[in-house]
This record gives sequence, C-alpha cells and structure tokens, in this order.
Amino acid sequence: MSSIYNFSAGPAALPPEVIAQAQQEFGNWHNSGLSVLEIGHRSAAFVALAEQIQSDLRELLNIPKNYQILLLPDGATYQFSWVPMNLLRGNKQADYVNTGVWSQKALVEAKRYCEVNIVASNAETGRTTIPAQARWALNKNAAYVHYTANETIDGLEFSWLPNVGTVPLVSDMSSTLLSMPLDIKHFGLIYAGGQKNLGANGLTLVIVREDLLGNALPLTPTLGNYQVQAENHSLYNTPPTYAWYLLSLMLRWVQTQGGVVVMAERNKRKAEKLYRFIDNSDLYSNNVDPCCRSRMNVIFRLRKPELEKKFLLAAEQRGLLGLHGHRLVGGLRASLYNAMPEAGVDALLEFMEDFEKNM
Amino acid sequence: MSSIYNFSAGPAALPPEVIAQAQQEFGNWHNSGLSVLEIGHRSAAFVALAEQIQSDLRELLNIPKNYQILLLPDGATYQFSWVPMNLLRGNKQADYVNTGVWSQKALVEAKRYCEVNIVASNAETGRTTIPAQARWALNKNAAYVHYTANETIDGLEFSWLPNVGTVPLVSDMSSTLLSMPLDIKHFGLIYAGGQKNLGANGLTLVIVREDLLGNALPLTPTLGNYQVQAENHSLYNTPPTYAWYLLSLMLRWVQTQGGVVVMAERNKRKAEKLYRFIDNSDLYSNNVDPCCRSRMNVIFRLRKPELEKKFLLAAEQRGLLGLHGHRLVGGLRASLYNAMPEAGVDALLEFMEDFEKNM
Repeated sequence: MSSIYNFSAGPAALPPEVIAQAQQEFGNWHNSGLSVLEIGHRSAAFVALAEQIQSDLRELLNIPKNYQILLLPDGATYQFSWVPMNLLRGNKQADYVNTGVWSQKALVEAKRYCEVNIVASNAETGRTTIPAQARWALNKNAAYVHYTANETIDGLEFSWLPNVGTVPLVSDMSSTLLSMPLDIKHFGLIYAGGQKNLGANGLTLVIVREDLLGNALPLTPTLGNYQVQAENHSLYNTPPTYAWYLLSLMLRWVQTQGGVVVMAERNKRKAEKLYRFIDNSDLYSNNVDPCCRSRMNVIFRLRKPELEKKFLLAAEQRGLLGLHGHRLVGGLRASLYNAMPEAGVDALLEFMEDFEKNM
Repeated sequence: MSSIYNFSAGPAALPPEVIAQAQQEFGNWHNSGLSVLEIGHRSAAFVALAEQIQSDLRELLNIPKNYQILLLPDGATYQFSWVPMNLLRGNKQADYVNTGVWSQKALVEAKRYCEVNIVASNAETGRTTIPAQARWALNKNAAYVHYTANETIDGLEFSWLPNVGTVPLVSDMSSTLLSMPLDIKHFGLIYAGGQKNLGANGLTLVIVREDLLGNALPLTPTLGNYQVQAENHSLYNTPPTYAWYLLSLMLRWVQTQGGVVVMAERNKRKAEKLYRFIDNSDLYSNNVDPCCRSRMNVIFRLRKPELEKKFLLAAEQRGLLGLHGHRLVGGLRASLYNAMPEAGVDALLEFMEDFEKNM
C-alpha cells in the first residue's frame, strides 16, 4: 500500500512533519539530554514553550488582549461542567441550543448546576438541519447562550455566528478551532478539545473574556476554576506537558502552511469535493441539509447498508482508516481535519468510485 | 559528560529502555501505519492495551477482585475533589491527617464538600515527623480517613499502614504506588498521579473498593463520578491515550526488573545510601525524623545556604539535573523514583563529596 490516511474523528491524524519532529527529538529535547516527557513544567525551557504557545495562538487566531487563553487537562467534556460553574455569575438559568449528540451532552451536564432553557432543537426532526436563529427562544435573563459549532457525530456545522446581543455567547469549538479564521470578540467563551486540530487528546483550550472570570460557584474544584487557572497561567498543578508540547508543534505547522486562512480554503475544498461526489452517486448518500453540512466530519451511508462492513474492510486494505461512523449512530464518516491532505480525499474518492463499480 | 541523571520530583525520569521503545515505535505502532498518538481509543488494539494494563496492575500489585482500577485524566489534584464527592455517601464529615503540603491541599479542597476533621497534624511542629497513630483523634462517624503516604515537598513518608478499623482508609499514593508491595485490601481507595512511577503526567490511577461506589453527590461532574468511570472502563470520553500507552510500557518495565519487591529493595538501598552520606557529612543536612524519611524524595540543605545556587550549577554541569527543592520550600531535593538507577545515586554521592571537598 502506498500511503495511509487516517479519517478518524479523534484522536485524529497528525501531519507527517509533526510526527517526524516529535519522534526525532523525543529522547533528547533541545539538547537537554532529557526526553520531552521528562521536562519539568517549571523549567525555563518549558515556560518558554508555554509563552510561545500563547503568542502563537494570539497571532494565528487574532485573539484580543482582554481574552485569557487557558490550557486545561482532558477533553472538552470537562467544560460541560466548568462552563456553568464559572459563568452562571449569580444567574439561575442558561440557554442551550440542541443540535446533536454533543450539545445534548453539554446541556444534560449543565442541569446539575442551573435551569437549562433549550432555545432551539433538531432532536425531534432527525438532526439533519440547524434551526434558523429567527426561531430561537432566547431568554434575556440567561447567564450565557451555549451552542456546539460542529456536531462530529451528526455531521452538522454552523456556517454562521449566532447573534445573541449582550448575553455572552459560549461555543464548543472542538472541531472548529484553527480550521478557519474566527471573530473571537463575538464570543464570551470558546473551548476546544485537543484531539482534532490541536495535536493530542488530554488537553482542552479555553479562550475566555476576562470580565466573565472571578465568579465561580463555591463548589467548583480548584482546577475547574477558570480564574485560578488564569492567575496560574494554567500551571496550578502539573499540566499534561506532552500535550502542550504537541500543541506547540501543531501551531508552528499551521503557521508554516500559511495560517488559518489557508486551512479554511483547503478544508472547504476537501469537504466540497467529497459532498459533490456523494450527491452525484447512486450508492452513497448524505441526508444533512446542504446549508449545515460539516466541513470537518462528512457522514454518509450506503444505499445498501449491508455492504458497509465490506466497504470498511476494502477501504482499510487501501490504507484508508477510521471511516466507521460513531458507535452511537453507525454508518460511515470521513473526518477531514487540518492534517488531512487533499491527496487523502482524492484517494478516498478514487476508492469510493472503484468500490461502487466493483461491488 | 558521561551520563545524565534526572532527580526531578515529576515529571520524573523514565527508564532509558522505555524512552527508547517509545521513540522507536512512535511513528508506526504495531505495524498499524499510525503514530501511537493517532490510535483510536475504541480500536481493538487500544482496547487490548487497556485490558493488558488492568491485568498487569492486578498482577504486580496483587489487587483483589472486588477493587476497580480506574485510569483518570490529569494529576492527583483532581482526586482532592472527587474523593469527597464520591465517598461521603450521606455522611457529613471526613477525617484528614495533615502531614505536609499535599495533605493540606487535599483537606482544603475537601472543605468545599464536607466538614473536615484534622485528626493529627505536624503543621505546628515544622513538618519534620509524622504523628504516631496513638495520638490521632479519629471520628467514628467519618465517611473515610485520608492520609498522604508520601509528602514529596516535605520529604516525609509513612513507613507503616494506619489502622482505622471499619472506616474506609483513603491514601494519596502518588509517590508510593509501584515503588513497593502494598496490601491493597487494607484500603478503601488509593490514588496516584502518573508523573512519578507510572510513566507520564496527565493520568491518575485510582484503585477503589467496589462497595464504596454508586453514591456520588448530585453535583459531581460525570467525569469525576467513579461509578460512571468504572462502568465505562475509564472510557466514558476520550482518555489521554498516550499516557495510557506509557503506563503500559512502565508496567512491562517493572515486570522485567522483577516486580515491586525488587523495586522496593532497590529503592531502600538508594535512599539509605544517600541519607547515610548526608548524616555523616559536615556540609549537608536533613532534619526529618529518621523514622519518617521519604524513600522517594530526599530533601537536604547545605549548612552554608549561600552555596546552594553554586551546588545546583555544578551538579548540572556533571549531568545531575532537577536537584532544586520545591519552589514553596527551597533547599535541595533528590527524587529517587523507580527509574532512578543506583548508579545515579552513586554519581550524586561522588559529586556531593567532591563539592564538599572543593568548595
């Protein structure tokens, strides 16, 4: 087999250049004689790395000065708790938009800490489109409005920014961050798990407007208190140093590729090519409203579902990995994060065409 | 310089064999064509690795069947919250033994969720000894008794197991786990951060007796609910897969070294050698009660404190790294976790002798 392409939704593919560098310097980082894994998180070298991450992120995403960048451990799921614990600020209710499995999980978790208003939902209509904002029942007294910018399991993505007035807008951007330019000042808080475009699982990025900090509920664990993490530069306790290191390599890689504008163009081309092929095919189908199709996670099915197993096996033999849908919904899915080259999508299309011909 | 030895308290040194293997297979794990970082946490290969970790741990530590082994994200600090949230079980109070910086942090965090009884403390007497159990004011109505088996910053370690009757005994064993055999059934719950003897930071091991599960406070985040984590084999969300992988390598390494009995003998020899040298020296000193000296973290000072900076610089030039004390207490510290070979201690002693002669 020639090349291997990993279409997994996460842990997702990494750029070959990043893997090569990480492997090369694994045992002896910056001539320290130590493995990257052994570098102390309070050492001058690591503190410099942490500062570089901050300045690279600010530059790549044009993050305003009144926003803090936090690097927190574990996946985005933790933020489902930390967001209400930190952002309720004396309010008793929060607005949630329910567009798929992940927004549903976020709002269920929030119910432990406040009253949750579901301002719009596609749960009853099959998760194939995103309710237009004109139909959202927003509450003026909500502490914040939460939405999931991309639903990795349902294959949906917002192509627009919700406009919620002065109520802080909060977004799970796990699949979105670094995939395109973003108007950060439109948001109160953005969070993103690491395993998509940020390098490795075990790390979540939080970008939060400073005026929202300092009001965590008393029951908030110290590590989940954004204010404490901000004051300690995310070094209150030993952070997942290796994930920070990988993030630093990923940021440099995005820079060398030309930044998030180039990423956005490339990601658009990859997704459009794949959706066009699916729409023109007799075998493959995608039932998501074209206005709301995810650029990052292209879900599809075979019109003959009994062939899906065969499809996955044959794909694997061609070096096309991770094409199964999420275990909750089944079917097929191709995730096209930053590290997926256009050649990977071309190889997938070639295979899909061959499979349709020869089945 | 010949060899480099890393005496850091964590992220601590890793065995050269583990670093070499991790580097060698970094880009192509088990002939998958994928980097270890890209392996899906629901893939057959990763599930097999997870099962191997469970069985290796059970074998190495002789963990009874009625104990669950959880692999949770981030450091031990999270457990300072999860322990009360999960183990209060309708009780309103918990007993804490205060023997150093870490037990103090644990009890401060517990106060968010319950009444904390400090049953014994060395805070007023300078943190140089561990109060004998005869003087502990245990409460029969406590939900559990918590103690820190080893205080990494203060250089103290329990050489005995507290006896607390039928009240569940809970211990922070971050520095202890895998360093020696342990009578697991003596405990209700043990937790240990990964960055000492388990491979990498970003992972914490929890070993918990099954009958204590299932009573988490309603405000507990789903990820902090031990019962949920147990039911999901610690795979409720994407775990820090790379830290799990490193743990698997570390367990294999301990097995090839001869298991925890061999580790215990080696760790005892290393620490005794260093304490003996310090006690016989005119320059170096350690004021911890000999009964309670840590085998893992040997703290010491120079009788001429103004020379400590010079000591650290000269040590670094000899390839002896990470010998500074914790930033809260200053001074010097040599951490002697499993991965520190006896040759490392010999090199340190040789240097300390030279330094004393030539200063």
